[in-house]
Amino acid sequence: MSNTDTDTAYRVLGTRPVRHDGVDKVTGRANYGADFSLPGMLHGKILRSPHAHARIRSIDASAAQALDGVFAVVTGDDFPAGAGSPAEVIMCRGHVRYQGHAVAAVAAATPAIADQALDLIKVDYEVLPHVTDIMEAARGAVIIDPELRTDGDESAPPSNISNTDVFEAGDVAAAFRAADETVSHEFDSATIHQGYIEPHACVARCTEEGQILLWVSSQGHFAIRDLTAAQLGIGPSRIKTIPAEIGGGFGGKTTVYLEPVAIRLAQKSGRPVKMVMSRAEVFTSSGPAPGSHIRLKMAATRDGRITAVDAELWYESGSYPGPLMGLGMMCLTAPYEIGNYRIKGYNVLVNKPFMRPYRAPLAPNAAHAAETVIDELCERIGMDPIEFRLKNAARKGTKAAYGPVYPEIGMVATLEAAKAHPHYRAPLGPNQGRGVASGFWMNIGGDATANISVLPDGQVSLITGRPDIGGSRAAQAMVLAEELGIPVEQVNPSIGDSDSVGMNGISEGSSTAYASSMAIHEAAAKLIDELRARAALEWEVEKEQVAWREGAAHPNGAGNGAKEPLSLRALAESSSQTGGPLGAEAAVNARFAAPAFGTHICDVEVDWETGKVDVVRYTVCQDAGRALHKSYVEGQLQGGAAQGIGWALNEGYYYNEQGVMDNAGFLDYRMPVAIDLPMIEPVVVEVPNPKHPYGVRGVGENAIVAPLAAVANAIHAAAGVRLRQVPMSPPRVLEAIRAQRQAIKKQREADIKQIERLTTKKSDKQKRREDLLKN
Amino acid sequence: MSNTDTDTAYRVLGTRPVRHDGVDKVTGRANYGADFSLPGMLHGKILRSPHAHARIRSIDASAAQALDGVFAVVTGDDFPAGAGSPAEVIMCRGHVRYQGHAVAAVAAATPAIADQALDLIKVDYEVLPHVTDIMEAARGAVIIDPELRTDGDESAPPSNISNTDVFEAGDVAAAFRAADETVSHEFDSATIHQGYIEPHACVARCTEEGQILLWVSSQGHFAIRDLTAAQLGIGPSRIKTIPAEIGGGFGGKTTVYLEPVAIRLAQKSGRPVKMVMSRAEVFTSSGPAPGSHIRLKMAATRDGRITAVDAELWYESGSYPGPLMGLGMMCLTAPYEIGNYRIKGYNVLVNKPFMRPYRAPLAPNAAHAAETVIDELCERIGMDPIEFRLKNAARKGTKAAYGPVYPEIGMVATLEAAKAHPHYRAPLGPNQGRGVASGFWMNIGGDATANISVLPDGQVSLITGRPDIGGSRAAQAMVLAEELGIPVEQVNPSIGDSDSVGMNGISEGSSTAYASSMAIHEAAAKLIDELRARAALEWEVEKEQVAWREGAAHPNGAGNGAKEPLSLRALAESSSQTGGPLGAEAAVNARFAAPAFGTHICDVEVDWETGKVDVVRYTVCQDAGRALHKSYVEGQLQGGAAQGIGWALNEGYYYNEQGVMDNAGFLDYRMPVAIDLPMIEPVVVEVPNPKHPYGVRGVGENAIVAPLAAVANAIHAAAGVRLRQVPMSPPRVLEAIRAQRQAIKKQREADIKQIERLTTKKSDKQKRREDLLKN
Repeated sequence: MSNTDTDTAYRVLGTRPVRHDGVDKVTGRANYGADFSLPGMLHGKILRSPHAHARIRSIDASAAQALDGVFAVVTGDDFPAGAGSPAEVIMCRGHVRYQGHAVAAVAAATPAIADQALDLIKVDYEVLPHVTDIMEAARGAVIIDPELRTDGDESAPPSNISNTDVFEAGDVAAAFRAADETVSHEFDSATIHQGYIEPHACVARCTEEGQILLWVSSQGHFAIRDLTAAQLGIGPSRIKTIPAEIGGGFGGKTTVYLEPVAIRLAQKSGRPVKMVMSRAEVFTSSGPAPGSHIRLKMAATRDGRITAVDAELWYESGSYPGPLMGLGMMCLTAPYEIGNYRIKGYNVLVNKPFMRPYRAPLAPNAAHAAETVIDELCERIGMDPIEFRLKNAARKGTKAAYGPVYPEIGMVATLEAAKAHPHYRAPLGPNQGRGVASGFWMNIGGDATANISVLPDGQVSLITGRPDIGGSRAAQAMVLAEELGIPVEQVNPSIGDSDSVGMNGISEGSSTAYASSMAIHEAAAKLIDELRARAALEWEVEKEQVAWREGAAHPNGAGNGAKEPLSLRALAESSSQTGGPLGAEAAVNARFAAPAFGTHICDVEVDWETGKVDVVRYTVCQDAGRALHKSYVEGQLQGGAAQGIGWALNEGYYYNEQGVMDNAGFLDYRMPVAIDLPMIEPVVVEVPNPKHPYGVRGVGENAIVAPLAAVANAIHAAAGVRLRQVPMSPPRVLEAIRAQRQAIKKQREADIKQIERLTTKKSDKQKRREDLLKN
Repeated sequence: MSNTDTDTAYRVLGTRPVRHDGVDKVTGRANYGADFSLPGMLHGKILRSPHAHARIRSIDASAAQALDGVFAVVTGDDFPAGAGSPAEVIMCRGHVRYQGHAVAAVAAATPAIADQALDLIKVDYEVLPHVTDIMEAARGAVIIDPELRTDGDESAPPSNISNTDVFEAGDVAAAFRAADETVSHEFDSATIHQGYIEPHACVARCTEEGQILLWVSSQGHFAIRDLTAAQLGIGPSRIKTIPAEIGGGFGGKTTVYLEPVAIRLAQKSGRPVKMVMSRAEVFTSSGPAPGSHIRLKMAATRDGRITAVDAELWYESGSYPGPLMGLGMMCLTAPYEIGNYRIKGYNVLVNKPFMRPYRAPLAPNAAHAAETVIDELCERIGMDPIEFRLKNAARKGTKAAYGPVYPEIGMVATLEAAKAHPHYRAPLGPNQGRGVASGFWMNIGGDATANISVLPDGQVSLITGRPDIGGSRAAQAMVLAEELGIPVEQVNPSIGDSDSVGMNGISEGSSTAYASSMAIHEAAAKLIDELRARAALEWEVEKEQVAWREGAAHPNGAGNGAKEPLSLRALAESSSQTGGPLGAEAAVNARFAAPAFGTHICDVEVDWETGKVDVVRYTVCQDAGRALHKSYVEGQLQGGAAQGIGWALNEGYYYNEQGVMDNAGFLDYRMPVAIDLPMIEPVVVEVPNPKHPYGVRGVGENAIVAPLAAVANAIHAAAGVRLRQVPMSPPRVLEAIRAQRQAIKKQREADIKQIERLTTKKSDKQKRREDLLKN
């Protein structure tokens, strides 16, 4: 670790205690989505379309229904029309829009009987032409939804472009005319998956009077409650969601797939129903991250000022219109102060699953374009890429293209950290190259509630409601320990179900530590106020004469010096006599989330024979605002970079000519494993967020933004080739190297011809040609 | 129902909504103690002493340990010495004090293997003399604990009397000398059991770092946590108790038996462990209610004033010294204003299980004595028993023998209600008689915490922490609905685990509705304050200009008339924008619990051939202070009376000469079932408790206090016999009738002889004698 572990202002924050849920997780005792079972429970399974695009003429489930051990069958007709958004992702209603689209479901006594029953359901499909290429779709090669009009314009013809948006400022055309250097390219990124280890799973139990218990593994069981209720057309309070642990989500577990189906099956059968996706279903039928096509033109002055940007970003929306596109547009130029820009976005329907967020959604695609174009501009004008970025870096007061004026931000600090890091000046080996890239993520906040109770022995129970993905129980316990002046081990953090603690948002948008710590801060203040009042009662003084520090009430003021401090435990023991149990609750809507910036340094080694690229060293400098738990912040930096590297080099959905995914499994969908990666070095930069009590910004997402470009820039440095298609897989790298050699060869041959034309002595010509060809 | 269902002051309180947990309970879906299972779970069983009193020379568990499928064996040595109180109830340490005392325990893969393993444990007992009769024990026939000295007096000889106490006032001897009428008798009551349907059960799961999850069915999972932790010598916060539903407790589920054992077995085996008592174990090895011997002398004036009381109360403490005796002393004379009294109490060890509370613990035994003696005094002076009680009734300002000066109380009101009730004047059939008795219970309060969260659709989640035994979820939801001005169906009440809500006391002492409603009242006030603030924000006015009524914020004041009210749902929907989730928490120590009084009318019919007594009509007039949910208050009145009738007529532990219980099962321990009882009519009297926001007093216990005396007085009215031994079983009644007939016959023969002596004409004498003998 290059950063120090001590912080003079805090006693607990910034340290590295063992996570409270650690032992349960390493022993396998922790319960994940599929770990729940109930007496009389059935197993639900879903019949999925084998076609990428089809109309359903009829579904005959009579044979399935008649099979012994089958208790219920449901189809799209069992769900209210138009409920939820989009309702048809849960189960299609006559129109299949992608391979893997849910068509029907069964609940049976065993998973094997359920599989048998699925085989017995007869679906009569009218197969339609399909489109999986984004630009073909944008051109309307096949129209997926004949009712859809771009931006709701009823006078326009049918289109797969559901909506568009544009950010504009300055005089872009004039700026390009005046520029010293202009670079323009087109970029492609594949559809990819979040790749969480745990498949989607849930258990539903329904009562005769309409109450529903739902065990879910998700990034936010309050949101799952609300989304499921919307899909079923019932009030959210009818459902109580009980959170399981979560085996990874990265944005992909912020929505519902199985839950409404499990509930309908449970209601129809009168039995609890468990549903668990297979890995293939996770790939074909959950919500991957959109592929994209980006056209970017950028201009700079000779002394390194970016003067103009013109960009068009096409993002896959998948089978239905989605809300994500704007995030890519926001992130394209956000790290820089640029006066003239025109950034246009397009959301495009394709015959693929409905796209969902993936860690800093859509930002990596955009940064891949922007940060490699900047690298090329630096090359053209001969400027160090960090110096160039420092010159253009967004600062406090910069107005971002997406609207806001930045508060105190850390873009410059991460560049300075990267510049100062030994990595940036370390020697490189043969066939190695170094790339730099920066990334932005805006972060969000949202609702958070914290309940505190003091237990009889002075331990403190802390209940919040956002699932713990990356160690948030520990971070939250640390905040409470910091405020109360007690060891972090004196706090028992846990995650409440949707009925037992107030509303809490989703563990998404890098918001969990940010929002929860604000609620805990407020609840702790209430508790300390109460503790002082109780001590005052015992001492028969005014509350104002009691101070709280080091986990105890202390007499404060003249004449009180002789009193022994009253510890949390002592006050807990006497609490019944001083007014009742000790506890506090606070609920906040955490606003003023402040953006995070990161700058990455990447060394790669390129195998010229195979095109394989190995990342040999990687450093992430990222502004956390304030790292509550250093190790888990570092873990986020490492995890984001690892996923970005996988995205950069290997991952991607391969669809065949029938629109069927050819690599729906971890053997063929190649994610990086430990052997594929170096130890990623995290450098936690701390430029406190002025609007947060501890300065937290949010750290969960930013580190995935820069790697695509950092790797691409490093490959260029190592091999002289610029890859603008992601993944930068061995065949593509090899092809780029060959094309470059061909080009060099051609260029040399042309040079030689030119020389021959210019020389007079034939023998001299011949000799020089021979000399040249030797090199 | 003789009482009206309308209350002008309240909209929801006093009505009869369906309980929120009703459907789960009637469908069998609700989870009770034995309904939990975990993967890899073992089954724990306990080896119990066959002897009433013994020393253990040795325990050899090697064969059990070696049995295939056995994972752990524990004995008393596995528990910290002297931890908890008394520790040896959990598992004896060398000294067996009652038949059924725990000696060792095993955890095995199946219950059958566990039983086999118990058979393989060799225990070498040195059997000691035992004593199960309280007065023999008090006289020291056998000394159970040679270390024990009465009241800790080290200079005294060993004794089974662990402690004594006395309440004294006035000049008792002088008052007796001056009295017109004096009645003095001795009374006996058998050891009895609470008779809950569900046996004790738990599941324990332990982690490597010492955290413990404990599923428990109890009257208070916070107390179970604390008691279990004390037995194990660990901090309470190491244990998280998860409450199951409870199938009856009545005081018997306020303590721990299996829980520390299950935890030790789980720790030793590394597996979760479930333990469930058999019915026989519940009888022999849980905590029954003490038998007693009471000597009571009471005097009254000819015009019906009680002038003096002299009493000695011996209560069984069971195998260890216990804390209960004082409760009996408190209740003996509490319904009356008496100037001169001496009430002495004795706690006596016997070779029976350690005695635990049973619904108004020890009060029925005391009231049996006091209320039958009063009945005899009334008979002597020829006064109506209700008039007599009205003349002596405690009122506001009366100083009770146990200390406090009563606030507003309902003793007179329950007597007036009984007097006015048609039952009191109804005609009786042949062999029927009517008895009256009153009862007192002090009620308690204690810690209570309530958490409220407003769900997105305006439903309100309410979490409290006392197990719901008699419908408290519904009563608590009603309080919140009343305060918020919403329908009770808009509240989702639930019981939180020991980590997820602040401290809550035990559902004992008639405290649950009393204490919880105070916490909910306070939390609701906080929430309404917040709701007004949110509405004020939306309307851009001051909070003071917003009123909360009928479930909505209303503009209050000039210029605000045009604004539409904002419902809870509307405010919930906008809550993220107005400051975050809506919720509130309040924790109280509910003090000022006010005593409850009750007056019962009982009609019995006595079968002169068999001695069987049938209760043919029964009316309970009891002061609830305020009935939150009328039906569940009535249910408490009915349930208490039913248990009191069972106690009066049938129940009792039968020990054989070896000190072994002969009737450890529901076939031989005869509790009343539906066919044994008439419909018990509850009359809810409401004399509000002035210190409670709704006037609640607590209703759970009082109704068991009067029945023993009411039944005894009714038997006397029907058959002319006074039974002073409980149960008043058919053989005892028959014996009393026979004895009475013998006495009458003897008296008549004496009378005749006297007449013969006084008459002269022999033939007249003969004739009169014949006439007399005909009657």
